[in-house]
Amino acid sequence: SLARRCHHRSTAMLDVPFLPFCAFLGTLGLLCVAMVGTWCQHWRGGFSLDGSSRTFNWHPVLMVTGLVVLYGAAALVYRIPNTWSGPKLPWKVLHGSLALGAFVLTVLGLAAVFCFHNSQGTPNMYSLHSWMGLGTVLLFSCQWAAGFGAFLLPWAPAWLRALYKPIHVFFGSTILMLSVASCASGINEKLFFSLKNGTTAYKLLPAEAVFANTLGLLILIFGVLVVAALARPSWKRPDSDSPDSRQ
Amino acid sequence: SLARRCHHRSTAMLDVPFLPFCAFLGTLGLLCVAMVGTWCQHWRGGFSLDGSSRTFNWHPVLMVTGLVVLYGAAALVYRIPNTWSGPKLPWKVLHGSLALGAFVLTVLGLAAVFCFHNSQGTPNMYSLHSWMGLGTVLLFSCQWAAGFGAFLLPWAPAWLRALYKPIHVFFGSTILMLSVASCASGINEKLFFSLKNGTTAYKLLPAEAVFANTLGLLILIFGVLVVAALARPSWKRPDSDSPDSRQ
Repeated sequence: SLARRCHHRSTAMLDVPFLPFCAFLGTLGLLCVAMVGTWCQHWRGGFSLDGSSRTFNWHPVLMVTGLVVLYGAAALVYRIPNTWSGPKLPWKVLHGSLALGAFVLTVLGLAAVFCFHNSQGTPNMYSLHSWMGLGTVLLFSCQWAAGFGAFLLPWAPAWLRALYKPIHVFFGSTILMLSVASCASGINEKLFFSLKNGTTAYKLLPAEAVFANTLGLLILIFGVLVVAALARPSWKRPDSDSPDSRQ
Repeated sequence: SLARRCHHRSTAMLDVPFLPFCAFLGTLGLLCVAMVGTWCQHWRGGFSLDGSSRTFNWHPVLMVTGLVVLYGAAALVYRIPNTWSGPKLPWKVLHGSLALGAFVLTVLGLAAVFCFHNSQGTPNMYSLHSWMGLGTVLLFSCQWAAGFGAFLLPWAPAWLRALYKPIHVFFGSTILMLSVASCASGINEKLFFSLKNGTTAYKLLPAEAVFANTLGLLILIFGVLVVAALARPSWKRPDSDSPDSRQ
């Protein structure tokens, strides 16, 4: 029918190839990392390990690099068409290693903010940002441990892998959504703190505020695009619903 | 094979029926609306139209009710199995009407915060929260207008409907993700503003802060569950990829 022909033509028009899309996402992710580093270096005094606000500065850089960009890269491994045939174990190891790298950066990012708070006598874990953020990291640690136990340990039974796989996929996207929402609330909160006194107030929208607001929007766009890429049916393993999740 | 049998059994175990899930989501959504109303009434002085902070209080209530809960209900209309057969127009009208209701509440919610800022002499649109939030509302207005033009106007050509439908579906989930991220940053920011002086500081975690932080987490859970329900293949119209999007 005409409608079906039109549908096929229009679907084809929207069929972005995966690898150029990935190159774009990689560029966007690196831009986010560069911008959060520039923000902390240029406007917030740089980095140190002395418990001052320069120790805090590791927190946004490590969180954006680990829990957003590297996490996004880990999540997208199984969307690379090369992973769909041949032995699966190397790709599992790559997925798990990237996620582990993201997790290590995330834990260091948490350590930076706790160290800063403790050395300043500021309480920990009171703001919604901290609740969301720690909740996200706790989910991520469960996700990594359960993924390791179910998919990498060779003695995990097939029924367990089949049962757990959709749960792992669901939490994979969920953790990234919560992570970018945590980044947005964190950037917002940091700008209110930093631009309260001394420098120009946040409400007068100095260059730093425009820069960091833009960073926040780019992080949100990165997260939305990764979650959309994960959900896109034509980019999933063709046999993703079949039970061949055994190595 | 054993693996396939296990897979089918485990998939069946995870097969939550849609309607009980919806009842749970509805309860969670109503709880969010009740909690944001209670927060503003009990701790923030209630509601008025005089340009004071009691005018601002309409902002969180209208945004959570409109751009999160009612929006979520509108998004899920086509997941109700009853909509999969019979005439499609009544369901389209229901979907568009719920979305329009959500949009009206959202615009009133924006009006409340602009009115409050203007009467207090506070600048508008400087924080990341405001950029994210207004961006979300602008996307929502384009989404509603384009959806009306493509799916409800009877003379819209089939090729346009087929071309636009996946875009509409993608932005449907994206807008909700951005909306709950905006709510989280807004609640966080409001608690820093309100608990700065006078009452107990946010960092001492008074009852209001625990209550509003919990509200923020419940809104995030609501958003994640709606986006997950929208993405779930077995809850989609069986023919959702076929070109029968004409009435």
